Amino acid sequence: MRAIRPRNEEARGRARARLEQLTMPYWALGRLMDLAEDLAGITGNIQPPVARRSLVVMAGDHGVAAEGVSKYPPEVTVQMVLNFVRGGAGCNAMARVVGARVVVVDMGVAGALPAEAAAAVLNRRVAAGTGNIARGPAMTRAQAVQALEAGIAIAADLDSTTDLFGTGEMGIANTTASSAIVATLCAAPPAEVTGAGTGIDEAQRRHKIAVVERALAVNRPDPNDGLDVLARVGGFEIAGLAGLILGAAARRKPVLVDGFISTAAALIAQALAPDSVHSMIAAHRSEEPGHGAALAKLGKRPLLDLGMRLGEGTGAALAMSLVEAAARLLTDVATFEEAAVSQANRAAGHAVP
Amino acid sequence: MRAIRPRNEEARGRARARLEQLTMPYWALGRLMDLAEDLAGITGNIQPPVARRSLVVMAGDHGVAAEGVSKYPPEVTVQMVLNFVRGGAGCNAMARVVGARVVVVDMGVAGALPAEAAAAVLNRRVAAGTGNIARGPAMTRAQAVQALEAGIAIAADLDSTTDLFGTGEMGIANTTASSAIVATLCAAPPAEVTGAGTGIDEAQRRHKIAVVERALAVNRPDPNDGLDVLARVGGFEIAGLAGLILGAAARRKPVLVDGFISTAAALIAQALAPDSVHSMIAAHRSEEPGHGAALAKLGKRPLLDLGMRLGEGTGAALAMSLVEAAARLLTDVATFEEAAVSQANRAAGHAVP
Repeated sequence: MRAIRPRNEEARGRARARLEQLTMPYWALGRLMDLAEDLAGITGNIQPPVARRSLVVMAGDHGVAAEGVSKYPPEVTVQMVLNFVRGGAGCNAMARVVGARVVVVDMGVAGALPAEAAAAVLNRRVAAGTGNIARGPAMTRAQAVQALEAGIAIAADLDSTTDLFGTGEMGIANTTASSAIVATLCAAPPAEVTGAGTGIDEAQRRHKIAVVERALAVNRPDPNDGLDVLARVGGFEIAGLAGLILGAAARRKPVLVDGFISTAAALIAQALAPDSVHSMIAAHRSEEPGHGAALAKLGKRPLLDLGMRLGEGTGAALAMSLVEAAARLLTDVATFEEAAVSQANRAAGHAVP
Repeated sequence: MRAIRPRNEEARGRARARLEQLTMPYWALGRLMDLAEDLAGITGNIQPPVARRSLVVMAGDHGVAAEGVSKYPPEVTVQMVLNFVRGGAGCNAMARVVGARVVVVDMGVAGALPAEAAAAVLNRRVAAGTGNIARGPAMTRAQAVQALEAGIAIAADLDSTTDLFGTGEMGIANTTASSAIVATLCAAPPAEVTGAGTGIDEAQRRHKIAVVERALAVNRPDPNDGLDVLARVGGFEIAGLAGLILGAAARRKPVLVDGFISTAAALIAQALAPDSVHSMIAAHRSEEPGHGAALAKLGKRPLLDLGMRLGEGTGAALAMSLVEAAARLLTDVATFEEAAVSQANRAAGHAVP
């Protein structure tokens, strides 16, 4: 965490100076140009490399699934890990669009993985699912540290082959844990940050809100201690992703933060190392109602807004093409001088009489 | 135009049935799933091909540039065509992100193209720029037909090597012509659909509004006759793009419509053949204030909203990755049955006592 520093203002300034001279009206590509400037600030490079992409999808189970907060049974976590490994899930399809490698990590699924899946995932299993946060803590502080360090180590392992990270996750009931984290770190009422998750109806959502309220009452997570929040109401995959983000930030690599659960992990990373936000890029706006508050706390505006609510890193993967586009503004586009294109008239238009 | 038909509802229905069975919560990828359904409806294929991409960038000059409506001198049109041909413009960079071929077309630039550019563009030059719409018609009806047919023919020529079209344009003062088209076809006051274009200030914009008002008063385009609107206040590149869209629609190919000027061309295509809208995909929301009205008239909601206002097809190119993502939902993602993943509980959650 000591390696995480503020953004490189000198590189941002040089990137901005070049972007202002590109053969187009001033800042005509809007937020893509903001992103290009950010990439320079993250990497310290005005020709930021983004070609080698890793989408890290972390899976973990949640004891709170026993409270009936999800539309799907907990065995779906293991089934979906197998689907990821076989390449048949949404995240695999999106990763193919942008040429990203999918790295699947077992941070703590409850069931046994089939041999085919076990052979293909990174095994960083802390335990067979978290405790039920409606009745006690999700994990011990030591387990939270272990999961964070596993994520940091994965960023380190992938660093030499990765220019651009993306986060993804799978875990039945993990929107419940995420709502508890967001409610704590954003000081928001659970009712405002608890959503339909996989598609529960309004009565089920009211039950889920009550579960989140109970989790906060039982655990009393300390909003000034990110590790305490993580241990009391978090999840193993959330902890792993928080570690991955910290690891990417320490190596000055951009990391695309996917939807609601990934953003909860990003809030933990921010709580532990505030300057880690500079390496984060918000990929998309999730349909989950708590995502807006979480993004605001990070100071981020997402790139895409397509009504998505799947997770798995699908939004992070999709947004990788926008990150490439932003980087290409710095590497591929000619300046007025280079292309011998006339610049704007300094005075008003050039009316003829 | 007789070949342009309504969307294929049978293919849409089959696509929807599969999308509903994918290993994810119901419609969890939101507008990407809507787009997948649309692609099936456009192509009649529930595995819609989108791999071969052509970004068609048409250039033309505008006599109304003499009224001082742009921040840039008219020679920039030719200079930018050379920049496109050399690969140094924004559209080239965006096209590289998505592996699209850039096809540059001279529909009627005013100046002579340098030999390097002349050798690399498609020469469909109708005339050396349009007439000044503030003083008379942009072109004759015969020229409008010629430019439309040139665009239709380009779609036909590219058809055998293109799955997915994108539109782009370049032409100093072409937002002025586009505002006149949008004001006419959307029955909107010029002040509401005339914007800053390349970045003029508010005083210059008020002058530009007056020029659009004068163009409408002088030409009195008939809103019930798309060809009349095109001839009186349009542009050669706008006509060519309208033709390209019609040609793509006739061949049941999806066409990504870029920003404000491309959308003005799409309105002309809609006026000439209303069912052509079914082949159109709105790529992004431009900063131009008239874009919203034009998109509403087409019944489209754009995929991206990144504060862009460059044109050239930059938004159309960027959105090609989202179209690929949508297509891959149909081709790459497993169903619950195929992946043996448990489906949602029919009843409420599965609370334990």
